[in-house]
Amino acid sequence: MTVLAGLAFLLLAPVVFGSVTAPTGPGTAVPGAGGEDVTQIMGGLFLLLLAAKLGEEVMRRLGQPGVVGELLGGFLVGPYCLGWVQPGESALVMAELGVVVLLFSVGLEVRTDDLFRVGKPAVLTAIIAMLLPLAGGFALTTAMGGEPISSFFVGLALAATSIGITSRVLRDMGVLDRTFARVVIGAALVDDILALVLIGLAAGLAEGNVSASTVLVGVAGIGLVLLGFVAARRARGLPSRAFTWPLFADTPLVPAFLIMLAIAELAAIIGLAAIIGAFVAGLIVAETEAAEELERDFKPLASIFVPFFFAVTGAQLDLTALLDPGVAALAITLAAIGIVTKAVGGMLGARSIGRWGSTAVGFGMVPRGEVGIVVANLALVTGVVDAGLFAAMLVAVVLTTVAAPYLLAWVVPRAEAETAAAAGGPA
Amino acid sequence: MTVLAGLAFLLLAPVVFGSVTAPTGPGTAVPGAGGEDVTQIMGGLFLLLLAAKLGEEVMRRLGQPGVVGELLGGFLVGPYCLGWVQPGESALVMAELGVVVLLFSVGLEVRTDDLFRVGKPAVLTAIIAMLLPLAGGFALTTAMGGEPISSFFVGLALAATSIGITSRVLRDMGVLDRTFARVVIGAALVDDILALVLIGLAAGLAEGNVSASTVLVGVAGIGLVLLGFVAARRARGLPSRAFTWPLFADTPLVPAFLIMLAIAELAAIIGLAAIIGAFVAGLIVAETEAAEELERDFKPLASIFVPFFFAVTGAQLDLTALLDPGVAALAITLAAIGIVTKAVGGMLGARSIGRWGSTAVGFGMVPRGEVGIVVANLALVTGVVDAGLFAAMLVAVVLTTVAAPYLLAWVVPRAEAETAAAAGGPA
Repeated sequence: MTVLAGLAFLLLAPVVFGSVTAPTGPGTAVPGAGGEDVTQIMGGLFLLLLAAKLGEEVMRRLGQPGVVGELLGGFLVGPYCLGWVQPGESALVMAELGVVVLLFSVGLEVRTDDLFRVGKPAVLTAIIAMLLPLAGGFALTTAMGGEPISSFFVGLALAATSIGITSRVLRDMGVLDRTFARVVIGAALVDDILALVLIGLAAGLAEGNVSASTVLVGVAGIGLVLLGFVAARRARGLPSRAFTWPLFADTPLVPAFLIMLAIAELAAIIGLAAIIGAFVAGLIVAETEAAEELERDFKPLASIFVPFFFAVTGAQLDLTALLDPGVAALAITLAAIGIVTKAVGGMLGARSIGRWGSTAVGFGMVPRGEVGIVVANLALVTGVVDAGLFAAMLVAVVLTTVAAPYLLAWVVPRAEAETAAAAGGPA
Repeated sequence: MTVLAGLAFLLLAPVVFGSVTAPTGPGTAVPGAGGEDVTQIMGGLFLLLLAAKLGEEVMRRLGQPGVVGELLGGFLVGPYCLGWVQPGESALVMAELGVVVLLFSVGLEVRTDDLFRVGKPAVLTAIIAMLLPLAGGFALTTAMGGEPISSFFVGLALAATSIGITSRVLRDMGVLDRTFARVVIGAALVDDILALVLIGLAAGLAEGNVSASTVLVGVAGIGLVLLGFVAARRARGLPSRAFTWPLFADTPLVPAFLIMLAIAELAAIIGLAAIIGAFVAGLIVAETEAAEELERDFKPLASIFVPFFFAVTGAQLDLTALLDPGVAALAITLAAIGIVTKAVGGMLGARSIGRWGSTAVGFGMVPRGEVGIVVANLALVTGVVDAGLFAAMLVAVVLTTVAAPYLLAWVVPRAEAETAAAAGGPA
């Protein structure tokens, strides 16, 4: 009943908050603000957060993954459905901070030693689970008569993993400390560096010149992650007062937040995803004695920031492209290739951790997220793919994102049972 | 030493993070983002937060109010000084959420009954401490040969109170529960409604037509605040599960955050400051049994968001206008009038709470902040004041903002001693 009341409120909200996009009086202008005024900022953030949370509520009461509800809530109020919220800069900032805070929190729960222990399957998985979708997308597009360069872009859009959704789902399930979760995270790290190099290569191919800087960027990416690992080892057992000696720091929160922003920024400057930097920052502070206090202090931050990432992602999903049968068929084929090749890649790369565990690794690498979108955009802008293929690539990315929570919800209990059955046996 | 190291790092930061404003590769673009990419967002937020915190650290080690350090840190890296950070939409969003979260937190610590108890001195103070600066600014400008309409605008810029700085300083001092603090907060509420009506009136005068809607807006403002008080009384003793019944709400945090955004948005739509709505939202949830849990959960949020408000405010302070002697002299005169008239207004309006207590009330109303800036901008845009007078108005607003923490630091201990001496006497 109360859920229904909430939904009714959500439906009425644009009537009540009718002036979300209307110009307001001088009393409410932010001095110096560019696009949005206070009314638009507050109204947009309110509707997105409300939609995400009501979406989660409905989906969870239906026994579905909550994160799918946040995505659908964002889609519902976003420009491709009801059009009540046009995610502006404010929502995008909250979304970006949301996924950064999420990956930092995931890093906080991971120990570097555990990550090293799964180094071999993680690297193997990353490589295999990148080459297989690349080959699959390439083969399909070539079979359809595409140029090699178009085929390469389509393959690449299917190859890059976005760890945001998976880490959220694994976190909601409370299985971040399992071996398969560590392999997924480690593989995603390696995957991001590989994708970085391949995107540089693709951009170079599209423009007809591959520069040596592509390789340098890859080296810088590996360097940042390795330096992060070294820093994490050095940070081991650092007392909490290493964070709280400044007068401004009542708790380690603000210094840790600054470290998070700094390393995320470094990663972004190099060309890696900012979330890789945030994850590395989480790894580092997780080794200090401030870890527990930080986990407690970051929880409220994550509750507020993270839903914006999924709501804004949802608001950017153009599910209406599925209404075109041609695009839909191609997109579903691409998504199916993307899912199967990642699953097989995980099963091959991580087969040392068991049948279901390795399948969980593969399914964990299914979501393509923003990296796939970036590749598709790049392909469109450079004229390598046409509008139809571009739409199909985008929708395929979307489908992998929405499918992942379901795939994980199905496979994780099996992986858990497998681990339980093998308990006492060789690790 | 470590502070020096931090400062050295801040000075080096633009070298290290040289590409804060440089375009980045496709791998780091936020899909659909307008002005800023991830590198700019993370880099800008990092530098602003770091500057604010280092500024606070230096000022506090020098025995000065921390909030002045945050303002100066923001000024230092901002466009009017070093120019390392051009506060973009992302910083403005964080700043706006910062002051909203701050006023919500203040509302959380105030009980409506206590506010009602100081109703009479608060309303008296608000009216007197608005009329006196209005008259003072009007008299000075008229004496300098200004038109009546220009004089009215200058007076109005000196009349409106911005409660952000004061509530932060009183909170840092731990005196939010004192009578004078409640009078300041109550008076600021009334002041904002009066300012709203007067700004509407001024805009109407400048354009030559005063409409009835100005009065309606005032009535709507009073209505929202009164409805808030009623809601707070109705919310009294509401159990925590009134917030946590949804599956998405592990704690009351997210529902309370939504209430905060909704009422802040309502206030902004009416034309009140969003922070008035946030404060009223805080008042309401403060009466429920979730108050304690919310105070704990909002503390990390405030630690992260609030410094952005002061850093961005600092980054928007054009202190360089003080280099023009004519502007500086006029600005200092205006600021002095603004400070003296507010102090006298407080002493007259709240004299029932004692000599130092009432002075603290007056000093608490000294900061003009964004409302003064809005009035000055309006005067410039409608051609009512020239560039020189505009600059002086802005600098006067800045001076009141920077002076307030010092005035409060000086008067609050005296008000405390007075209260202690009067303990046992009539309230």
